[in-house]
Amino acid sequence: MQVKYHLVKKDEITAARAGTLETTHGKIDTPVFMPVGTQATVKTVSPEELKDLGAEIILGNTYHLYLRPGHDLIAEAGGLHKFMHWDRPILTDSGGFQVFSLNELRKISDEGVLFRSHIDGSSHLFTPEKVMEIEMALGADIAMAFDECAPYPCDVKDVVKALERTTRWAARCKEAHHHEDQSLFGIIQGGMVRELRERSAQEITALDFPGYGIGGLSVGEPKYLMYEMLDCTVPLIPEDKPRYLMGVGSPDCLVEGVARGIDMFDCVLPTRIARNGTVFLPTGKLVIRNAEYARDFAPLDESCGCYTCQNYSRAYIRHLIRCNEVLGIRLTSIHNLHFLVNLMKQIRRAILEGGFYEFREHFFAHYMV
Amino acid sequence: MQVKYHLVKKDEITAARAGTLETTHGKIDTPVFMPVGTQATVKTVSPEELKDLGAEIILGNTYHLYLRPGHDLIAEAGGLHKFMHWDRPILTDSGGFQVFSLNELRKISDEGVLFRSHIDGSSHLFTPEKVMEIEMALGADIAMAFDECAPYPCDVKDVVKALERTTRWAARCKEAHHHEDQSLFGIIQGGMVRELRERSAQEITALDFPGYGIGGLSVGEPKYLMYEMLDCTVPLIPEDKPRYLMGVGSPDCLVEGVARGIDMFDCVLPTRIARNGTVFLPTGKLVIRNAEYARDFAPLDESCGCYTCQNYSRAYIRHLIRCNEVLGIRLTSIHNLHFLVNLMKQIRRAILEGGFYEFREHFFAHYMV
Repeated sequence: MQVKYHLVKKDEITAARAGTLETTHGKIDTPVFMPVGTQATVKTVSPEELKDLGAEIILGNTYHLYLRPGHDLIAEAGGLHKFMHWDRPILTDSGGFQVFSLNELRKISDEGVLFRSHIDGSSHLFTPEKVMEIEMALGADIAMAFDECAPYPCDVKDVVKALERTTRWAARCKEAHHHEDQSLFGIIQGGMVRELRERSAQEITALDFPGYGIGGLSVGEPKYLMYEMLDCTVPLIPEDKPRYLMGVGSPDCLVEGVARGIDMFDCVLPTRIARNGTVFLPTGKLVIRNAEYARDFAPLDESCGCYTCQNYSRAYIRHLIRCNEVLGIRLTSIHNLHFLVNLMKQIRRAILEGGFYEFREHFFAHYMV
Repeated sequence: MQVKYHLVKKDEITAARAGTLETTHGKIDTPVFMPVGTQATVKTVSPEELKDLGAEIILGNTYHLYLRPGHDLIAEAGGLHKFMHWDRPILTDSGGFQVFSLNELRKISDEGVLFRSHIDGSSHLFTPEKVMEIEMALGADIAMAFDECAPYPCDVKDVVKALERTTRWAARCKEAHHHEDQSLFGIIQGGMVRELRERSAQEITALDFPGYGIGGLSVGEPKYLMYEMLDCTVPLIPEDKPRYLMGVGSPDCLVEGVARGIDMFDCVLPTRIARNGTVFLPTGKLVIRNAEYARDFAPLDESCGCYTCQNYSRAYIRHLIRCNEVLGIRLTSIHNLHFLVNLMKQIRRAILEGGFYEFREHFFAHYMV
């Protein structure tokens, strides 16, 4: 089946909304945070742990999976769900972001992008058609169109070029994509220029996708600029389609993204900072490596219901991380993923109960950015 | 409570025996394999996973825990069980083996061993009394006496010295140990010399401990020598006391150890080789990194009931390990630990059913050492 978005409730003050997204592998409550499983695994955690912490959908990275183990191998295994033992929805990105961010030796043309593998230096060509072939082979519930993501900062001429190419590639992706159990989402670009964001939104939505990603944000710009771009982009996306803010994952940005009408988020942030021993708390981030927690036998967060906080102390987690024991980064990863997934569930509840504005105020009164 | 060993059944052909060991944290079926949790965690796996794979008792390393996070901190946390979230039995070694194997700059005297931390080079003195203080603070169900482990090969004069010191230290440990919920086991040394093994067994058992470790084996000697030492040592240990072969963990040595009357084993082998991508199969070891498993979508072992084999393919595990994803080494660790724990359960069943001899023959007909 193709995904179906149902708008359940709109907030009366902000642009926040609660909905559901039906997919081949089940229904997702939105707004939702999607943990990132770059290499067919969400780093350090198992599928059962992901379910236990409430994850409803995860992300796979097309670029990484294409290079290793290869999309053909995953197809042979029966698709990404079966390969990685995850039976809930999956979204795959298009590899566009990685091709640009991991590659200094790329050659871009209208045809596509010639790039070198960051693993072995081998040459590969990503065209919209090739990316569709890969994503169809991976078999996620949602596939993203191949786009060109302009860096930040960037000459406006280059932003325009990337925008126009993204539109042309989106049309080619749509043409090449045919998979009855996978929905193709278009991606809106346009850099940090209001007029270009609007133009991209108009061009991409004109192609009529079942959902839309907003790309090219959270690439180093100040947060107010990102919020400004959302303010002008989201209203141009049809209300009956899900809106996905790509690569955004700090708790404050999730709250602000929802307030601007975003339904879906993904980011490596929770697992990446977990591996450095940093955890999210309702009051902000905490660096568990610090000496002050050596004899702190309380959980990371007394009010948290995650596996980590229910069973382990700060002192123990600090000990594990100092000793480079992988259980340590698993425990912090579980906590951080649960924090974001649960934050979205709280947000959804607040929207449904008509209290999102108060929730947002309460959140920022406590959370130190 | 102090541990109580109950002999349930003796094999009629070999010296194998099935029994139970009652401890403060529950009853253990013997023979048993004990996963090693060096730094208050069995590397890569959680307590729930350990229970799920059937582990009944685990080991903690006194040397490592003393250095980091410190036995006083663990005592403050409520003991090792509570600190690491494990409510089944724990055995702590004495640190003797690590002091000798990890230290080139040690100074040994009758008083004890002055050594440098392998972490920061700081100086520390382990005496029998100090080690008892540490082990009592850790609060395991079973504590091992502080011993001197002679290397292999070793001058016979030095083996005698280590043996005599081990006996004197055992008496001092017994004198210093007083913990109503912890049992102190003596350790038999004697290198690879039959007469010295017998002498050590007599001296140590004369001190009347509730259980006995056999140390100084599996230190580089050929296996037949280890078996020879077991053949002459085990019969000198009172039948009503558990016998623990320290540091032994290859599947073939477990079977042969049981055949010689051993009840308890521990070893880092299953988790160490798991981290290199090597797994135990009924036919021997398999290196999952090898290219031949790239498209092998079968489980590691079709006949295995572990979490890994029930849910993942060789191709997926190989992919994870090649990508340095920690879920990979978790899955191989779970499988290897399950393999040894389950091997012991099968052995126990065979002993109880009077079929251990046949089990052993069958095992070696298939397992390639």
